[in-house]
Amino acid sequence: MTETIPDTGAFVTPACYVTVQQFYAWQMGLLDDGQSDAWADTFTTDAVFAEPGLPEPLHGREAIRASVRERTARLRRERLTQRHWFAMLTVTETADGVNTRNYALAVATPQGGELAIRGHAVCLDELVAHGGSWLVRRRTIRPDNRAGQPV
Amino acid sequence: MTETIPDTGAFVTPACYVTVQQFYAWQMGLLDDGQSDAWADTFTTDAVFAEPGLPEPLHGREAIRASVRERTARLRRERLTQRHWFAMLTVTETADGVNTRNYALAVATPQGGELAIRGHAVCLDELVAHGGSWLVRRRTIRPDNRAGQPV
Amino acid sequence: MTETIPDTGAFVTPACYVTVQQFYAWQMGLLDDGQSDAWADTFTTDAVFAEPGLPEPLHGREAIRASVRERTARLRRERLTQRHWFAMLTVTETADGVNTRNYALAVATPQGGELAIRGHAVCLDELVAHGGSWLVRRRTIRPDNRAGQPV
Repeated sequence: MTETIPDTGAFVTPACYVTVQQFYAWQMGLLDDGQSDAWADTFTTDAVFAEPGLPEPLHGREAIRASVRERTARLRRERLTQRHWFAMLTVTETADGVNTRNYALAVATPQGGELAIRGHAVCLDELVAHGGSWLVRRRTIRPDNRAGQPV
Repeated sequence: MTETIPDTGAFVTPACYVTVQQFYAWQMGLLDDGQSDAWADTFTTDAVFAEPGLPEPLHGREAIRASVRERTARLRRERLTQRHWFAMLTVTETADGVNTRNYALAVATPQGGELAIRGHAVCLDELVAHGGSWLVRRRTIRPDNRAGQPV
Repeated sequence: MTETIPDTGAFVTPACYVTVQQFYAWQMGLLDDGQSDAWADTFTTDAVFAEPGLPEPLHGREAIRASVRERTARLRRERLTQRHWFAMLTVTETADGVNTRNYALAVATPQGGELAIRGHAVCLDELVAHGGSWLVRRRTIRPDNRAGQPV
């Protein structure tokens, strides 16, 4: 009996994979805790952030910073705690870092109220190695409810 | 003061654990992306797939392939994007691989619509080592809403 | 072009991180499977368990044991299967163990019924190294719907 060898997509080393896991737990925790500046600083200065909710992609860390500050201020006014879960992480090596894919689930809870699920997306990142951790050079969010539409 | 040593169930090495994590992210991503054949090829040729929703367990990779092709075609007709989250992974070594337990959550989003949670299950797998990755030899799905009933 | 180095919060080694991941999957699985005594034994004898739902924090393993036995009995009477998902784990080293932060989501499914999400919290733990695994010395649960209130 012969078995087909699955194309495992070139699994990365445990050390690499775990560093990426730690990066996302830390990075998205900054966002959810409202640490806008620290979160913006996890992107390269020339990073691109693309999601369909934006009229056009954000170009550069400072555009990302302005956007996240506005978002954080809005959530504070609404007394809403938002949490991002990233999971089902796949990692592939590139010349100067890794490309990653995460399933992303956003949930929001108002003060004294009930949790609501904001939706599911796939998050595709280009990360560059930086000082034992990573910086995001490009983030593309693909919400599941837009599947089948042009990205 | 003495402490009871918890039975930690013989944790596996980090290298083993992380390979299994990468396997599931990759494997379930294939299913969710509608890559039916690649997904079927992650099972051994004599694999058994058991879940209460099936009249009887599927026997063999080709039976699994036929089933997943049908499922993928149905989701496409319904314009539904389904995502499987596996987490809370425990791994124990066996003679030729590992036994795993995952919490599994399935969510589905229609095009232009709202996410719905399909339910929670425990997924019990027998994996066999294969070319630096794994193949599933047996998968048993235990939906939480059938807890207390005969499996 | 210079890049700001993010403060990555001193990522722990892959070996450490993965052992903590395995600990939580195993520990919370014990709770969800109704193994009250085994779960209580994952706390130190002098552990403190604090969550806003309790009139005051539980002090000591035996107080935790009494509380979890009551909880397990109640869920059995209600024929409810509860599952705890811990994820987005961050780990920092301490003198005799690690401090951790998890996102925690609790879901519950009645026999024959539909899953309900019980809510989202942040779980802050002090773990002490013990026999290749960990014991919880202090657990603090911060539900998102109480954000902004005194802890």
